[in-house]
Amino acid sequence: MAAAQTQNFARFVQWGRNVVAVGRNYKDHCAELGNAVPTKPLLFMKPPSSYLEEGAGPILLPRGCTNCHHEVELGVVIGSVCRDVEEKDVMSHIAGYALALDMTARDFQDEAKKKGNPWTMAKCFDTALPVSKFLTKQELVDPNNVTLWCKVNDEMRQNGTTSDMVFSIPYLISYISQYFTLNPGDLVLTGTPAGVGSVQPGDVISAGLGDLLTMKFPVAQRK
Amino acid sequence: MAAAQTQNFARFVQWGRNVVAVGRNYKDHCAELGNAVPTKPLLFMKPPSSYLEEGAGPILLPRGCTNCHHEVELGVVIGSVCRDVEEKDVMSHIAGYALALDMTARDFQDEAKKKGNPWTMAKCFDTALPVSKFLTKQELVDPNNVTLWCKVNDEMRQNGTTSDMVFSIPYLISYISQYFTLNPGDLVLTGTPAGVGSVQPGDVISAGLGDLLTMKFPVAQRK
Ligand SMILES: [Mg+2]
Ligand SMILES: [Mg+2]
Ligand SMILES: [Mg+2]
Repeated sequence: MAAAQTQNFARFVQWGRNVVAVGRNYKDHCAELGNAVPTKPLLFMKPPSSYLEEGAGPILLPRGCTNCHHEVELGVVIGSVCRDVEEKDVMSHIAGYALALDMTARDFQDEAKKKGNPWTMAKCFDTALPVSKFLTKQELVDPNNVTLWCKVNDEMRQNGTTSDMVFSIPYLISYISQYFTLNPGDLVLTGTPAGVGSVQPGDVISAGLGDLLTMKFPVAQRK
Repeated sequence: MAAAQTQNFARFVQWGRNVVAVGRNYKDHCAELGNAVPTKPLLFMKPPSSYLEEGAGPILLPRGCTNCHHEVELGVVIGSVCRDVEEKDVMSHIAGYALALDMTARDFQDEAKKKGNPWTMAKCFDTALPVSKFLTKQELVDPNNVTLWCKVNDEMRQNGTTSDMVFSIPYLISYISQYFTLNPGDLVLTGTPAGVGSVQPGDVISAGLGDLLTMKFPVAQRK
């Protein structure tokens, strides 16, 4: 692949071709939405067209959505092809990390769940995936034990730690790789802790990962 | 984007970053699965990792799947960025076409629909998107009126025409572009006519588009 050959992971947003996300991977978040804790990872995807880098403009609430939620998540950037990778080998396939917001049109999702429809309208809209800068593995030494938080207009909404994940990063990536080959530059979103909630046009979402980074995104309505 | 800059549409499978698919876009197919004809396009996505080019190996039935269906579809390859594109302008944003099989783990999909879960496991697995060679716009002059067929082991299973689509190509792409920006090299799958059905390891699926092309893919079990 032309794209992967560049291997400039600092710019994975520009050339990565897939994003695999896991839902309900923190018990307290399962509880707040009334969902059971899953017995196997619940997977969905977001397209690269939903990426939003800091400074590139606001999160745009999709047309018709009246309840768009922030979900702060640790993202894992894949460094080399993962196909049927064993758990013990996963860490060697990771290039680094990013903090992400899995923006979710909760009203669209509720409708999809009721009708048995895909989650696509709820999860994949333009700007539905704000992301931080890339962090190398050396910068985040223990991804399974780092705090992540999300504020809306300086009010703390989410404040968790990746040590509370139901399925660990090695387990998730091994599982995903049994069905979906992961390629360099792909992002794996590892789920969100409790505290998700609605944002409105004019709000500002900020989020942080340990003492490693913070990021900030304004919210607007897509006209 | 490094990838898009090459603009070698004959190789869109190698660098395109997204596939947007529409479900239930032929009335006779809605009827055969007991679904209502939708009043707006039903959208889902497939990842580039699911592409399978002819000659690159067999379609691999995903682990645990016991009812994997063929769905033959016309694919539209995007030529330039589509964001809030009007119907009348859509044709100028198209680079060309490909014939595709939207392989679907129907048992996984039935379970997802029942539970209100994403369709990802059913639609996105490796090899779930066999595709033909690229056709230019000059080669397929009237995409809204071309026959498409699918055989399993020389038995005709699907034999339809794109003139039976519920939503036309311009309508679909205009609609999609209101939520999801389409980029050069992206593929839009336009739905399948009636006759979908199960395939087994050892089967050979062949499919054709008008008198323009045929393609052939063997089926095997992912070990
Ligand atoms: Mg989906
Ligand atoms: Mg999430
Ligand atoms: Mg289909």
